[in-house]
Amino acid sequence: MRVGIAGCGLIGGSLALALRGTHDVRAFDPAGTGDVDRAERLEDLLPADIVVVATPLAEVVPTLRALAGRADGAVLMDVASLKRAIVAYASDAPADSRIVGGHPMAGSTHVGLGAARADLFGGQPFFLVPTARSDEAAMGVAGELARAAGAVPTVVSAEVHDRIVAMLSGVPLAVALALARAGADVADLAGPGFRDATRLARTPSDLADAILRGNADEVRAALRRFRDALDDVERGLD
Amino acid sequence: MRVGIAGCGLIGGSLALALRGTHDVRAFDPAGTGDVDRAERLEDLLPADIVVVATPLAEVVPTLRALAGRADGAVLMDVASLKRAIVAYASDAPADSRIVGGHPMAGSTHVGLGAARADLFGGQPFFLVPTARSDEAAMGVAGELARAAGAVPTVVSAEVHDRIVAMLSGVPLAVALALARAGADVADLAGPGFRDATRLARTPSDLADAILRGNADEVRAALRRFRDALDDVERGLD
Repeated sequence: MRVGIAGCGLIGGSLALALRGTHDVRAFDPAGTGDVDRAERLEDLLPADIVVVATPLAEVVPTLRALAGRADGAVLMDVASLKRAIVAYASDAPADSRIVGGHPMAGSTHVGLGAARADLFGGQPFFLVPTARSDEAAMGVAGELARAAGAVPTVVSAEVHDRIVAMLSGVPLAVALALARAGADVADLAGPGFRDATRLARTPSDLADAILRGNADEVRAALRRFRDALDDVERGLD
Repeated sequence: MRVGIAGCGLIGGSLALALRGTHDVRAFDPAGTGDVDRAERLEDLLPADIVVVATPLAEVVPTLRALAGRADGAVLMDVASLKRAIVAYASDAPADSRIVGGHPMAGSTHVGLGAARADLFGGQPFFLVPTARSDEAAMGVAGELARAAGAVPTVVSAEVHDRIVAMLSGVPLAVALALARAGADVADLAGPGFRDATRLARTPSDLADAILRGNADEVRAALRRFRDALDDVERGLD
């Protein structure tokens, strides 16, 4: 496949490293693409079978918009951690555009191309979310890309996706932030248990904001389930 | 130093591996001591400068009792995760016994000698708790042992110790158990964040019981502080 990568940070860079041995991969990033083949301009990623939009969150929809008018059949897939925004954008996108939401469940509190690695996605779930501009063949291309990166594609709706990640990403992040605050005065005496439990508190603040405030209703609902479970654990202390 | 190790699991075995290059180390464990020099019987660990009691929790006080009458000046130190029980025992121990409470902030959800490693304590805090049978020289011997294992000794009272570990060990464990329960139906779609956040839920149940039910009042107080911090994080969603 001809694969374009728009945005070459942790996720885009890792995808490029994972795929370039077996696919024709080019990346575009104003900040450089390391030793990944570089496109001079965003539009030079086309023609392609698929372009992955892995920019910072605020640039995802503008980048999709810039590509959608000239994609000529290329599948466009974002990889952001929430999926309602892409589904909303797709409903208004050009009728001939092909847009799939993607979200690999892989990451790190380290960011940027320097933290990228070819095995980041190995064995990890990779959510694929159909939009009003997804056809079956487009879903197939997105699935092929996910598998080629070593991941395990799972198709879900945007609503189900955002509910699932509220529990899998939102609650662990909120809990880590709370634990880091509650234990701040004794943290320098901590062993590996507390350190691992608070690792997510170092999530970059723009990503933390997207995961928590960007999905606030679902995170609140998931936190209610967590609090109920914590009540059960606490009752077990008696 | 002549160091005896009673109980050669993760902690005892790791101490033996960390110390045997520079000290005269013997271990006793009915289940075997791997390639650490083995004493045939518990009492063969004496004479020694210090005997570390690293048995399962239920056997700590019986083992101390068996050693205290014949220790002849050897410092006896346990390494259990709570310290009030050892302080209570020490008040009634033979007048000439020398007893120090110890608690290295290192561990793993893996247990047993097979998981032991010489670098388990490297750079980690190692709490030392004085008892009614601790003299200054005994505290010094215990501190020397902790430093020889690569750890950083910190002297605290039993009450302060148990309050600190309620936050550093109890709350992270309770939170991991609650998160694993609340997210059980979607856990197979989890990425590394959720998996790391629930790792402590695999703590062996006897150890989990000791950390939570064995320190219930302090854990409840620490959970109140955690819940307050979580409320703050949740208010930030608005």
